[in-house]
Amino acid sequence: MRAIDQTHDPALKSWVESANRPAGDFPIQNLPFAVFRRAGVREPFRCGVAIGEQVLDLAALAALHPLEGQAQQALSACAQPALNGLMALGRGAWGALRQGLSQVLRAGAAHADRAAQALVPQSGVELALPARIGDYTDFYTSIHHATAVGRLFRPDQPLLANYKWVPIAYHGRTSSIGVSGQPVRRPHGQLKAQGAEAPRLAPTERLDYELEVGVFIGTGNPAGEPIGIDQAEEHVFGLCLLNDWSARDVQAWEYQPLGPFLAKNFATTISPWVVTLEALAPFRSPWHRPDADPQPLPYLDGAEMRSAGAVDLELTAWLETARMRARGAAPERLSCANFRHSYWSIAQMVAHHTANGCNLRPGDLLGSGTQSGPLSGEAGSLLELTAGGRQPLGLADGEMRTFLADGDRVILKGRCARPGFVHIGFGEAVGIVLPAA
Amino acid sequence: MRAIDQTHDPALKSWVESANRPAGDFPIQNLPFAVFRRAGVREPFRCGVAIGEQVLDLAALAALHPLEGQAQQALSACAQPALNGLMALGRGAWGALRQGLSQVLRAGAAHADRAAQALVPQSGVELALPARIGDYTDFYTSIHHATAVGRLFRPDQPLLANYKWVPIAYHGRTSSIGVSGQPVRRPHGQLKAQGAEAPRLAPTERLDYELEVGVFIGTGNPAGEPIGIDQAEEHVFGLCLLNDWSARDVQAWEYQPLGPFLAKNFATTISPWVVTLEALAPFRSPWHRPDADPQPLPYLDGAEMRSAGAVDLELTAWLETARMRARGAAPERLSCANFRHSYWSIAQMVAHHTANGCNLRPGDLLGSGTQSGPLSGEAGSLLELTAGGRQPLGLADGEMRTFLADGDRVILKGRCARPGFVHIGFGEAVGIVLPAA
Repeated sequence: MRAIDQTHDPALKSWVESANRPAGDFPIQNLPFAVFRRAGVREPFRCGVAIGEQVLDLAALAALHPLEGQAQQALSACAQPALNGLMALGRGAWGALRQGLSQVLRAGAAHADRAAQALVPQSGVELALPARIGDYTDFYTSIHHATAVGRLFRPDQPLLANYKWVPIAYHGRTSSIGVSGQPVRRPHGQLKAQGAEAPRLAPTERLDYELEVGVFIGTGNPAGEPIGIDQAEEHVFGLCLLNDWSARDVQAWEYQPLGPFLAKNFATTISPWVVTLEALAPFRSPWHRPDADPQPLPYLDGAEMRSAGAVDLELTAWLETARMRARGAAPERLSCANFRHSYWSIAQMVAHHTANGCNLRPGDLLGSGTQSGPLSGEAGSLLELTAGGRQPLGLADGEMRTFLADGDRVILKGRCARPGFVHIGFGEAVGIVLPAA
Repeated sequence: MRAIDQTHDPALKSWVESANRPAGDFPIQNLPFAVFRRAGVREPFRCGVAIGEQVLDLAALAALHPLEGQAQQALSACAQPALNGLMALGRGAWGALRQGLSQVLRAGAAHADRAAQALVPQSGVELALPARIGDYTDFYTSIHHATAVGRLFRPDQPLLANYKWVPIAYHGRTSSIGVSGQPVRRPHGQLKAQGAEAPRLAPTERLDYELEVGVFIGTGNPAGEPIGIDQAEEHVFGLCLLNDWSARDVQAWEYQPLGPFLAKNFATTISPWVVTLEALAPFRSPWHRPDADPQPLPYLDGAEMRSAGAVDLELTAWLETARMRARGAAPERLSCANFRHSYWSIAQMVAHHTANGCNLRPGDLLGSGTQSGPLSGEAGSLLELTAGGRQPLGLADGEMRTFLADGDRVILKGRCARPGFVHIGFGEAVGIVLPAA
């Protein structure tokens, strides 16, 4: 677990004024990473750090205001159009860079004028995927989600016998992962009505979002060498938000026996800012499991994991329909969950993924699976919120939704707050549904 | 479908003598691509073409003996350490390069002396993965395999209702794909004995191979734009052999509800040589389906696909145990199948994969799934050959196998033959099982 240190001090202020506003996502205690360039300028993408409403251009900073030692080495890896280089350097480098950036950006820092030349307003940048994602794995860590969905697909056996033993996961598609703002074309797929003799190819009628956390791997492992549970978090760079768009009708017909495929791989949207585990240190909480449940096998169990393996991260999903947009109405909140309730922790995901010797690489992405809480309003997908489409949701303006309509914008947000600390945010993962081709 | 042209003329001979031996895999009619460098030399990997027992170094050829027009443009893309550049150029460029190379290598060619300087003996090269594989998807196209495996996992319902409608597939892992020669460490996994209360973490006791064909995508498609069945093969560069190593005990316990994960992602071994669809043109055969079966939906059906959508490719799997090796005995053939019997064609795989708008990219790899024929000796995995481990196989020397033992080498081979044409081979995909760590 990363230590809470002086970079988390709630008294710290930045000379970047917008970072000190109490409601902002990006105070100096956060410092999340993204890949950006100035919009409308044909220039290379490079890495940046969010500070208030600005991006600190790390490629420019390395020239204008070099850091020292390991921090400067880490900074040098940030001139690339992806975070993979920084991710591969490991935890020591990440910590050193965080310390260095925190010092550069804090109120009263020497040479703030030089660093200020490396600032670009967020309103004027284009953001890219934060990393070249070699492999993307989606887990299924919320037992509330697994139970609710299982009930719809298999009423007789909602939670399968392996769920409490195996951190269930499947491989997803990397080519269709996009960054916030991604347009999502309503996909066609084979739909088979109940009782129909044959399926037909048609646009999905049950397009859904899934409210998930993305976990970016920093350092990898060689093939054949599992990562132990006590070392697992050392390999994790940081977290983002992830919307695992899903076509439920396609999924119901195709998923046996090898799992979801076309129901998922048309699009996955992540937020551009990667919040590091260093920034999340104050928001860790114990991981525990009901005593009545089987306790994890030794390779998935550890003292550190139990004492602080969870992340107290509030996750929300918001809907803005075309009509809301036309009326200038605010998006409506559909889901509110917390990653703290995940049945499996980040360390367990990493240890399990590599238990068979599978090699992870810098920039690999793990999805947490939909995060749903125990209450119905805490469900992280429309499938659950509408009981499989049987109970339409009424929106404030009289609109109804079972599944997503063309023109709907889905906005995921994440936020960590704890008394005694400055709250930090994840920005947004936004996607808009386009009509089928 | 690619046309049969003069490059397939059985009368064609090469000035590379070893290419003219009747039993060889790599006559001038084949010309498969790989990525190589000279063994023991610290030099960059680049693309080459197999000719007899030699590799034609395409980076060297471009300098020593430039081709003309589109062929030279294609050749220029071959100095990279991966075929992705060539793959992205498309069918016109692939055909032009094949014509050019065929002319350079045929007996009596002018300037053969210059091209000869670009030859490297295959015995002296190190082969790499032929492409940077962005995504790997494994299909399940053999109905005989699906039925036999289904019977073991679900005796009451061996073939699921969707099988004859949906070309079932799932996403695999790219990080652990290796080229022939890959050592495969026996993986640990959660094993749950029947009747046991809890699973345990232990080395797999049911390690298996799967005899598959790999399909390399050449040109991709933009997100949201499906590839039609009649255009599908234009997007395919060529085929290789693929061993989808599997831990059957891990698979049985983990695969519900999201499909195989750790049972598969510890290793996948492919052959280094990619045989192009151009080279395979003489070996195409009609794709058909029993009249009693449902016929494919329109997006999976087409006249060209029906007339020549299958590939008459004989596939074999061979076992060399440590004892055979010690005795100098020849490997023993375990499986013999033919890709011609696949229930779903290559074009159907591509059209289905993109029907929802999922984008493919140059270098993406599709696996065909285990190819098994209707007879028991034609099964492409030990799971089937031993009826789920209940009927051990007797080997010539008195050894027995249910699943793979440490020290076993598995060798996949592929061969196309048809009267009136020179037969072509795929080389080998070899992997050796190392003991668990």
